[in-house]
Amino acid sequence: MTGKIARDILATTKADAILVTSPESIIYLTGYGNFSKEEREAFLLITLDKSYIFTDGRYKTAIQKQVNDFIFIEIGSLKPFYDTLSHLLQKNKINSVSLETDNLTVKEYSEFNKIITQIKSTTLKNIRVIKKDSELKKIKTACKIADEAFIEILSFIKTGITEKELATEFEYLVNKKGVSLSFETIVAFGKNSAIPHHETGSQKLKINDIILIDCGVNYKNYCSDMTRTFFFGSQNNKFKKIYSTVKKSQMEAIEYIKKNLILDGEKTTTSKKTIRKTPLLASSVDRVARNFIVSEGFQTIPHSLGHGIGIRVHESPSLSPTSKDILTEGMVFSIEPGIYLPDLGGVRIEDLFTIKSNKLLKLTDSPLQADF
Amino acid sequence: MTGKIARDILATTKADAILVTSPESIIYLTGYGNFSKEEREAFLLITLDKSYIFTDGRYKTAIQKQVNDFIFIEIGSLKPFYDTLSHLLQKNKINSVSLETDNLTVKEYSEFNKIITQIKSTTLKNIRVIKKDSELKKIKTACKIADEAFIEILSFIKTGITEKELATEFEYLVNKKGVSLSFETIVAFGKNSAIPHHETGSQKLKINDIILIDCGVNYKNYCSDMTRTFFFGSQNNKFKKIYSTVKKSQMEAIEYIKKNLILDGEKTTTSKKTIRKTPLLASSVDRVARNFIVSEGFQTIPHSLGHGIGIRVHESPSLSPTSKDILTEGMVFSIEPGIYLPDLGGVRIEDLFTIKSNKLLKLTDSPLQADF
Repeated sequence: MTGKIARDILATTKADAILVTSPESIIYLTGYGNFSKEEREAFLLITLDKSYIFTDGRYKTAIQKQVNDFIFIEIGSLKPFYDTLSHLLQKNKINSVSLETDNLTVKEYSEFNKIITQIKSTTLKNIRVIKKDSELKKIKTACKIADEAFIEILSFIKTGITEKELATEFEYLVNKKGVSLSFETIVAFGKNSAIPHHETGSQKLKINDIILIDCGVNYKNYCSDMTRTFFFGSQNNKFKKIYSTVKKSQMEAIEYIKKNLILDGEKTTTSKKTIRKTPLLASSVDRVARNFIVSEGFQTIPHSLGHGIGIRVHESPSLSPTSKDILTEGMVFSIEPGIYLPDLGGVRIEDLFTIKSNKLLKLTDSPLQADF
Repeated sequence: MTGKIARDILATTKADAILVTSPESIIYLTGYGNFSKEEREAFLLITLDKSYIFTDGRYKTAIQKQVNDFIFIEIGSLKPFYDTLSHLLQKNKINSVSLETDNLTVKEYSEFNKIITQIKSTTLKNIRVIKKDSELKKIKTACKIADEAFIEILSFIKTGITEKELATEFEYLVNKKGVSLSFETIVAFGKNSAIPHHETGSQKLKINDIILIDCGVNYKNYCSDMTRTFFFGSQNNKFKKIYSTVKKSQMEAIEYIKKNLILDGEKTTTSKKTIRKTPLLASSVDRVARNFIVSEGFQTIPHSLGHGIGIRVHESPSLSPTSKDILTEGMVFSIEPGIYLPDLGGVRIEDLFTIKSNKLLKLTDSPLQADF
């Protein structure tokens, strides 16, 4: 299956081989997720009939056990990758190689330029955008585990707990369930919630504080992502207004998608001819939610409305004003409008969705309200 | 201080400005560590008299509060970075810009090529190699917190606990101390310890298992890293032999460094003339430890002997057979020999060191032995 994907790309690039370097593509194609995401620890070379994985001795036993459909080639300080690759290319008469030019650095490219006869340029960013059922299942499980842990941490919320302490309890619960975080949990109390990417710190919870929690779980290399905002005390009218505006903004986006999916569905069933479906533009979904917030007198959302998610927390498609992406069957993405008022705090509500059988399905299910 | 560092580089590259893109350089120069290390969320532009930071609205409040010596420029979907930068370059007549070509992708470079009159190439990889006292202090604190948490998790080690459970307790203790991990803790029981980068899993601890724990703490953006290996039961002769060989290998490396530092010290004090010190080659230190292991009849270490550490867990210098680095005053690095026997398990001992006042100082202090 994965070999087929790489070979399909190989066919479009018309090269003898494709060299895969981006960590997320390596995870996707091998199923092995223990390489560093920050360092270059492995490479894949895929030709029409063979698949190779180059990595160092630290991973030898694991790769030989777990990644059976790739030929393991050890590299290291004394067996540098570039020399090893050069030898393999020459031996197998591989002249043209497609490289991920949106992943390789200029310096790396110049090294490849010395050993590859003909370099072609490719991107693998979009191979993961339509999720297979097995991938969707993993994302659903990640969402479910996050929902469970989220409900459990609500009991820790009391006056005096710090942001870091609450985040710590979430992480502990998640780890106890045998999985890990998909990103460092954001917990923001009070005015800190006005910082969309607040650095969870030593701020203590006070009565009448906003509580914003943005968290996710990584299950078998697949991520979840979810944000909830609560008011700790008696809600004032200002908070109520912001909250309901954000909630309605998310609903506007959801309704817009549903409406367009239904229209598409109807068109398809009323005729046997191939009908051009109206493309469901990600930018239009963003616009609907964004315009609603602005129409209520607030500043526009200072970030995108949403992002695709899978092996990476942020991947295609992008739901933003300038996105060129079209939302289609099998995509998984967040819808997360927010309003941030520096003097008061912020509200963000984030859920994950997928389009399945022409329907919009919500994958996250954490409670929107809580009694403290 | 940080402005000076960037401007010194600027002087050497003879460009009008330097564009900083690598996350670790951005942390180093701004002191702000909350940007993603996997995504391009911020850029710095440093000219002879001004410093700019480009990032999106999610970070606006935080940057304006915490990064005072940089002019904040908001970018986003509707204010794309390339357009914003192009405008600034033109307005300020900045023609030549140094780019980090070992960090930028080929695709990004081609975008810059459209808007920068003259591109120069630079690297910032080595600006962080000599640690300032303030940096060393943070690394020392990270090591101390890791040591404390490490001693505390020893009481959790008992028959039946899984690798993941033990790693979870370490992470929980670290988080409880208000800090976070520098990397995902590696816990390997039994034969799993033969995999140098084992993926911590559901393996349960049994009597007569090897226990390998590789862990680190991140304190104010600075990392620690440490490995200990124990035997859970009555040590057999094979384990004793491997363990003592690894320990002696580390001692050989330590003694080699100390001996060379003393020689250097003597030379310097016996004469007031500038004397060429014998360069302390990182590759020689690697060789000494590696040769010892091979001389005892084991296979060579399947990884480098050590690595520099700071904002990143792995950075310059590299202690490996082909390293060209010279170990000098102010560097912080690991010495971590290991022997891995697939049928039995592995042993690795890792400590962090720095060279300070021409002396080798050990920064990690976790116990090498434990009573279970």
